Amino acid sequence: MQYSPLLTDLIKNLQSLQGIGAKSAQRIAFNLLSGNRGKGLALARSLADAMNGIGECSCCRNFTEEELCPICSSKKRLQEKTICVVENPADVTAIEAASEYFGIYFVLHGKISPLDGIGPEELRLDQLESLIERIECRELIIAINPSVDGSMTSFYIADLAKKHNVRVTTLAQGIPMGGEIDNMDQTTISYSFSNRRAF
Amino acid sequence: MQYSPLLTDLIKNLQSLQGIGAKSAQRIAFNLLSGNRGKGLALARSLADAMNGIGECSCCRNFTEEELCPICSSKKRLQEKTICVVENPADVTAIEAASEYFGIYFVLHGKISPLDGIGPEELRLDQLESLIERIECRELIIAINPSVDGSMTSFYIADLAKKHNVRVTTLAQGIPMGGEIDNMDQTTISYSFSNRRAF
Repeated sequence: MQYSPLLTDLIKNLQSLQGIGAKSAQRIAFNLLSGNRGKGLALARSLADAMNGIGECSCCRNFTEEELCPICSSKKRLQEKTICVVENPADVTAIEAASEYFGIYFVLHGKISPLDGIGPEELRLDQLESLIERIECRELIIAINPSVDGSMTSFYIADLAKKHNVRVTTLAQGIPMGGEIDNMDQTTISYSFSNRRAF
Repeated sequence: MQYSPLLTDLIKNLQSLQGIGAKSAQRIAFNLLSGNRGKGLALARSLADAMNGIGECSCCRNFTEEELCPICSSKKRLQEKTICVVENPADVTAIEAASEYFGIYFVLHGKISPLDGIGPEELRLDQLESLIERIECRELIIAINPSVDGSMTSFYIADLAKKHNVRVTTLAQGIPMGGEIDNMDQTTISYSFSNRRAF
């Protein structure tokens, strides 16, 4: 079907959003045009504002348009003297939702990956080191996904933190709460056995 | 989790898109901010252009920013002297994809619904009547979804077209191609029996 040029452009650009296919893009476009134009214009404005205005927190590198993100602006959280290192801003959201951690974060925006040309400089680990010094960090919690590249990144950061005499910890691994053992992969099961704990 | 104001706005506005929930909106926002800002800006521009620029074809009421949509601009399609009446622009796309119909369309943008205060004036049936006269229409095909309101709308339009001495037809109903009889609803099965055809 041949759409008009503006409609073709809109559908093509909606498809560039993660998880939106051709059919969804068409449905969204028609829905916006049929009486929801105000919503479409509001989204256009906030997309432009966000793409142009949002940068990185100068302390933790999470997304924010301010100098400091809401978490790094909190004196209470800085006083914990704890840094949790994560790969992505989405990880911060997930950890905050669990309401178990009260320190600050450091967002890598990636992991060390020699094949992709991403080394310690690209992850701004120098900024992490100066943060450790500045807040007199007592504990650094590594919350990086346990992939091959992720594990390499974790080891590198652990080494770096130990040089500054910081206690380094990492998240517990094993069977997830509510997980079913017969659905679990072999590596997780064998890890859970060799790291079993007193009941 | 407390996002920065611009990010909160972006996620809220992404959620106003049909079929996008809180989790998808967050994933899309982070994905755009992490190295896809160009895509975000392109979408912002085409959303604003489409919302402000797209109106209705003066002939068939389908979405277009031109005076006439590509279909109504085609002499070949006008010469068929056939009008297919549909509820929504999405129906036009679906019928065009089937490559079986070569006339023009008339898009109602709704159906008669007294409870919602939608009558023949809101559907611009006067415009349909003058279109019938103008192209010397020979056949009017009703392709309106067979809901309660839809059937009422179909009857009303059929009456109206017959006054202009136009042949009125409607789409065949029955078991869909590839459909399984044991999954079909009772109404469709009993309709298919009472309207069975010679093999």
